[in-house]
Amino acid sequence: MTLCKSTTKQARAMANAIRFLSADAIERANSGHPGMPLGMADVATVLFSRFIRLNPAAPRWFDRDRFVLSAGHGSMLLYSLLYLLGYKDIGIEDLKNFRRLGAKTAGHPEYGHLAGIDMTTGPLGQGISSAVGMALAERILAAKYGEDVCNHYTYVMAGDGCLMEGISEEAISLAGHLRLNKLIVFWDNNNVTIDGHVDAASSVDQLKRFEACGWNTIEVDGHCQKAVAKAIIKAQKSKKPTLIACKTQIGFGAPTKGGTSKCHGSPLGAEELSAMRKALGWNYAPFEVPAGVLTSWREAGQRCNSAYQDWQNRAKTKGKEFSDVINGKLPKNWDKELKKLKQKVIAEKTKVATRKASQMCLEAIMPHIPQLIGGSADLAASNLTLTGVSKTVTAKDYNGNNIMYGIREHAMGAIMNGLALHGGIIPFGGTFFVFSDYMRPAQRLAALMGIRVIYVLTHDSIGVGEDGPTHQPIEHLAAYRCMPGIRTFRPCDVVETAEAWQLALETEDKPSILALTRQNLPLLRMSAEENLTARGGYVLSEADGKRRATIIATGSEVSLAMEAKKRLKEEGIEIAVVSMPCCELFDAQPLDYQEQVLGKAPRIAVEAASKFGWEKYVGLDGDIIGMDGFGASGPAEELYKYFGISVEEVIDSVKNLL
Amino acid sequence: MTLCKSTTKQARAMANAIRFLSADAIERANSGHPGMPLGMADVATVLFSRFIRLNPAAPRWFDRDRFVLSAGHGSMLLYSLLYLLGYKDIGIEDLKNFRRLGAKTAGHPEYGHLAGIDMTTGPLGQGISSAVGMALAERILAAKYGEDVCNHYTYVMAGDGCLMEGISEEAISLAGHLRLNKLIVFWDNNNVTIDGHVDAASSVDQLKRFEACGWNTIEVDGHCQKAVAKAIIKAQKSKKPTLIACKTQIGFGAPTKGGTSKCHGSPLGAEELSAMRKALGWNYAPFEVPAGVLTSWREAGQRCNSAYQDWQNRAKTKGKEFSDVINGKLPKNWDKELKKLKQKVIAEKTKVATRKASQMCLEAIMPHIPQLIGGSADLAASNLTLTGVSKTVTAKDYNGNNIMYGIREHAMGAIMNGLALHGGIIPFGGTFFVFSDYMRPAQRLAALMGIRVIYVLTHDSIGVGEDGPTHQPIEHLAAYRCMPGIRTFRPCDVVETAEAWQLALETEDKPSILALTRQNLPLLRMSAEENLTARGGYVLSEADGKRRATIIATGSEVSLAMEAKKRLKEEGIEIAVVSMPCCELFDAQPLDYQEQVLGKAPRIAVEAASKFGWEKYVGLDGDIIGMDGFGASGPAEELYKYFGISVEEVIDSVKNLL
Repeated sequence: MTLCKSTTKQARAMANAIRFLSADAIERANSGHPGMPLGMADVATVLFSRFIRLNPAAPRWFDRDRFVLSAGHGSMLLYSLLYLLGYKDIGIEDLKNFRRLGAKTAGHPEYGHLAGIDMTTGPLGQGISSAVGMALAERILAAKYGEDVCNHYTYVMAGDGCLMEGISEEAISLAGHLRLNKLIVFWDNNNVTIDGHVDAASSVDQLKRFEACGWNTIEVDGHCQKAVAKAIIKAQKSKKPTLIACKTQIGFGAPTKGGTSKCHGSPLGAEELSAMRKALGWNYAPFEVPAGVLTSWREAGQRCNSAYQDWQNRAKTKGKEFSDVINGKLPKNWDKELKKLKQKVIAEKTKVATRKASQMCLEAIMPHIPQLIGGSADLAASNLTLTGVSKTVTAKDYNGNNIMYGIREHAMGAIMNGLALHGGIIPFGGTFFVFSDYMRPAQRLAALMGIRVIYVLTHDSIGVGEDGPTHQPIEHLAAYRCMPGIRTFRPCDVVETAEAWQLALETEDKPSILALTRQNLPLLRMSAEENLTARGGYVLSEADGKRRATIIATGSEVSLAMEAKKRLKEEGIEIAVVSMPCCELFDAQPLDYQEQVLGKAPRIAVEAASKFGWEKYVGLDGDIIGMDGFGASGPAEELYKYFGISVEEVIDSVKNLL
Repeated sequence: MTLCKSTTKQARAMANAIRFLSADAIERANSGHPGMPLGMADVATVLFSRFIRLNPAAPRWFDRDRFVLSAGHGSMLLYSLLYLLGYKDIGIEDLKNFRRLGAKTAGHPEYGHLAGIDMTTGPLGQGISSAVGMALAERILAAKYGEDVCNHYTYVMAGDGCLMEGISEEAISLAGHLRLNKLIVFWDNNNVTIDGHVDAASSVDQLKRFEACGWNTIEVDGHCQKAVAKAIIKAQKSKKPTLIACKTQIGFGAPTKGGTSKCHGSPLGAEELSAMRKALGWNYAPFEVPAGVLTSWREAGQRCNSAYQDWQNRAKTKGKEFSDVINGKLPKNWDKELKKLKQKVIAEKTKVATRKASQMCLEAIMPHIPQLIGGSADLAASNLTLTGVSKTVTAKDYNGNNIMYGIREHAMGAIMNGLALHGGIIPFGGTFFVFSDYMRPAQRLAALMGIRVIYVLTHDSIGVGEDGPTHQPIEHLAAYRCMPGIRTFRPCDVVETAEAWQLALETEDKPSILALTRQNLPLLRMSAEENLTARGGYVLSEADGKRRATIIATGSEVSLAMEAKKRLKEEGIEIAVVSMPCCELFDAQPLDYQEQVLGKAPRIAVEAASKFGWEKYVGLDGDIIGMDGFGASGPAEELYKYFGISVEEVIDSVKNLL
C-alpha cells in the first residue's frame, strides 16, 4: 500500500469517506464486496468530484454523463457516492440497510430501485458492453438533434472479470470501430479475482488488446488522484474510446487483507476494519462522515447546476419531437401506416413469411418513429431488418437508424440495453432465433430492468430447413416463456405480426421477442379492428355449433391447424382453432376469458418446437404435437412431415381424443 | 483473383477438386455455402495432403491430428476432403445427397453422422473455442501418458464470424495463457461477411489482438500453397499457439461472384458454375474427379499408415488405464468410495449444502478416476470444485486435473466440449447456475452432439440471498428441462447428489447439469441401496394409509415438503412426498411407474423457481408453489418467506385442494 504524495489530504479524505461508508455498510450487512470500493475510491473521487456531469436534484437529466459500474459487486462504491453527492433518494439509513430485503441499496445496483443508478449490473461484462450502447446513443442523438442538447461522456468502471468475459471483446471492438470517443473505461487493474491472482488464469496484454480494437489507452496509478485527473483530461480529448488502466490495490487500506482475494467478496471483519481505521487515520464512527468532507462532496454535487439550467433552456428550443423522443413517447399517429398495411394485406390475402411481414411493418413505421433504431448481427438480409429509409450509422456519420452489429449477438443484446437505457432510442435487433442463446444474459437483464428492447428473431423452427439442427430452434420458445418480464410473440401472419410490433413498441416496461418464420404463411386474420394479439390468445376460428375439440397453435402452425379444421369439418367434426401469439399476455387475461377461449372440449397444442410447457393449456388429458428432440438437415416441408407436425397428425390427434 | 505461380498444376488441381465437388454438391442441393470451400481449398489442400496426421481407415485414431471446421457452413470443404482422402464412410453418392434429409452430409458438419467429423459446428465461435479444449486435452494426456502416445496438432479453420464472436476472445486468451503451441488456427481472411465487407462492422487488428493474447501470428497468401506450407512448418515449431492469417478470396474461382458476399450462402447458379469451370480449366462433369487427382488424394490419405501402426504398437505397452481412458471407460470399482460416503452420511445424518455434498462426492471419486478433469470459471471456492487431490493445469505443468478457466463461462462450456470430444477426459466445470446463460450455446452443442460433459452449477435459487436477482436463477431449471438431450439434476441431499454424480459419470452420451444449493439441507434419504435418482422421481415418503395429496419437490424444497408432511400428519392429513431430482429420467420411466409415483390424489409441485412446466405433473387441477417473477436482494430465509415458498404455503395449498 503506497500513498501518492500529490493527492491532497482533503481529496484523500473524500476517498476515505467512500471507503468507510462502503466497508461499514458491508460489515453491518455481514455480506458484500469491499475490495472494489476500497480500491477504486480514489478514481471515483476524482471522477465524481471534478469531472462527471450530473445533478443530484435531476437524476434523469438527459444530457448527464452516464456512469456504469460494470463491476456491479462494488455496489457500495456507487451508493456511497450517491449519498455523498446529495441524491435525495438515498439517506444514511439506506446505507445502513444495504442488502436488506426491500432496501434501495440492493446487493448489486438495480436500475429503478434508486435514482442515480444508470443500469443494473452484476453479471460481468454486461455493464461495459451496454455502456457502448449508451455512448452510441449519445452520438446518434447528438448527430440528430445537435451537440447543444446531447453531448456527454459515458464512464465505466470495469474489473478484470468484465474484461475477461467475451462479450467485452464484441463490445469494445464495435466501440473502436465506431470511434465512440466519449466512452471512457476505468479498468480496476488490481490483478486479483475470486480464485486468486489474475495471472493464474490470464496473461492478456490488455492495453495491446484494446489498441488492436481501436482504443486509446492510458496507464495510471489508481491511487494518485492527480494522475487520474490528467488521464481523464487526456481521454476526453481522444478521438477514440479510451481505456484508463488504473493500477490499484484491491481493498486499499485494509492492512492484512488488502491486495488479496480475501477482501473481494466478504466483509472485512471487525478487527480488520478497526485496523483500517488506524491505518488511514479515520477517527470516525461507522456511517459518520466528518462535516468538512461531506460539505466538499455536497458542493461537488452542485458543480453542474448552471450547466443543467443552460441545458434546460436549450432543450426547450428543440421542439416537440425532441421532447417526445427523450421522454420515450411515440409520435402521435405513428401507427397510421401500420393500420393501412393491415387493411391492405387483408384485401390482398398476402402470403409472406412473418420475417417479411415484419419488414413490411418496419417499412410502414420506420419513417414515422425517429427514435426507432434497428440493426442485425450480420444477418440483415435474412432477418429483414432493413427498410427503404434505413441508413447505417458509421463513425463518419452517426445520423442513421441502422446499426451493423457484426457477428456479435451478445454485444448486440447489451448494446440495445444501453441504447434503451440512455433514452431517446427504441432499439430493435435481429439474428436467427437459435442464436438468441448467445445474447441470453443481456436479454435477462433487459427483462429484469424492464426496458423496451425488441428482438427480431427469424428462422424460428425446423422451417429453417437444410441448415440443420444447429440452426433450428427447438427449446427457445419455452426457454423465453419461462423467463420473467419478457414477452415472446410468435405471430401467424401479417396481421398478427403488425399487432405484435404495435405491442412491442407501446410496451415501455418490457422487452419483446418477435419469433418469425423463414417460410411463407397464408393470411389467416380477415379482420384487424381489434388488436387480438393483445389478448395473447383468441379464437381465430370458432366451431360451427358445439366444439368437439380446440386446437391451440402459434405462428406457422396456425395455418396447419386451420387446414385440419377444414378437413375435419368435411368429416362432420367441428373444432375451434385458437391462435396463441403470446402466452404471457394470454396468462394475464381474466380467467373467464381464458376459459372461454380454451373451451371445455379436449385440447390439442400444435407448435413446431419443444412440447415443454404446453400442459398448462391442454392439461394432462390433452395432446401436444411438437418436437421431442433436435431437428435435422433437409428441406423444410420434409422435416415437418418427418417430425410429425402435419395436418394429418392434427386430424389423428383430434380423432384419438374424441 | 490472382494465381500464385509457385503452386504446381497438380496441387492446384487437387484444390480444384475440392472446389468443384463443393460447388457441384451445393448446386445440386440448391442450398449451401460455396464461398468458404472455394476460398480455403488451397489451404485445405496443403494441410490435408501434406501435414495433417490421420488415417481414413481408423477415423477415431486417438493420436490423429484434430481438425475443426469452425466456420461450419463451409461443410462441403470437409465432406469433399473426407471423400477425396478415402474415408469409407463417405462415397460420391453422399456428396450428391448433400443437405438431404437423412444424409450423412448434413447442412453443417454433425458429429457422429459421418466418420472424420471431429465436432459439430455451425454456431460461430464454438469450433475455435472447443479446439482449445482439444489442444488442452492433448497436452494433459501427453503429460500423463507420454508424448509417445499423445502428440498431435489441433487444426482449425475459422472465418471472420468466429473471430468476432466474444467466445473466441475467451478461448484464445486461455489458449495463449496455457501456451497451447500445438493449436494452429487458419483464419480465412477474406474480408467478407453475410452483410457485406468486414470493414463495415469491424476494424480490429486481428494479428495484434491475437498477439496480445499470447499467440504467434503469421500472414500468408491463402492461395499460395508454398507459402501456406511454410507457415504451417513455422507454426509447428512455435512455442505459442499460432494464428495463420490466410488472405483469401471468398468463392475463389467464381468469376463474377468471387470476392463478394453473393457467394457466401447461396449456390453459384448454373451459369456462374459453368464460367468457373472455364476460368479454372476444369473440364469435368459434376462429381467427376480426374483419376490422377483422385489418386494423389488417396495417396495422401495413406501418408500416415506406418505412423499409425507404430502408434498402435506403442499404445499397447501403456497398459489398461491408458486403454480405458482413451476408450471413455471408467475404472472398475471407481464408485467404491462413493458408496461408502453414502453410508457414512446416512449414519451421520449429514446436513450440508448440496454444493458441499458435490465436493464430498468429488473427494471420494477424483482419486479413482484419472480422466476426471475439473475446473471453475473463477468460482472454485463457491462451486466447491476443488478437492484434496486437485492440481491445477499450468503452462509449465500440464499434468493436473483442475483447470482455472477464469471469468470465461462461455469458453469453459466450449472447452469442456473439446476435452470430451478429444477423448481421454471427462470434464466437469462450475459456475453460478444463473451464469450458465453465458455458456448456453456451448451446452446446446454438447446436448446435440451427445457428449459427456458435467456442469456443476451452484447457488441454484433465491437461496443465493443478498446478491440479489442478477445472481438468482429463476427460469434456468425450466430452460434446461425444455432443451433436448441434456439432463438436469437438482438433488435434495448428499445421497441424491452422489446418485446424480454417478449417473452423470456413467452416461456417456449426454451432458448433465447438477443444480446445487448454496445453503445447507438436511439429509432426507435414509437408504442408498438403489440409485433412486436414476428413476428421476420417486416416493421419498409415502402416506400412512390413503394419500390425500402428493407433493412433488426438488432440491432444497424437498425438505420443506417433508416438514409440511409432518405437520399435516399432526392434523391427521396424510400426504406423500415425491422427490424429483431429474424430470428427464422420470419422463423416461414406464407410464405405470410414473402414475404410481404421482398418485391419484391432488398434486402440488414445490420448487423455488419458475412455475413454468410443472403442469406436466400436477395437471390443471393441481397447484404449483414457485416463483412468478425475479428474486430480490436480502437474506435467503427472508426471501423464501417473502416469495411464499414455505412450509405454511404448502400446508395451505394442500388444504385448499382438499
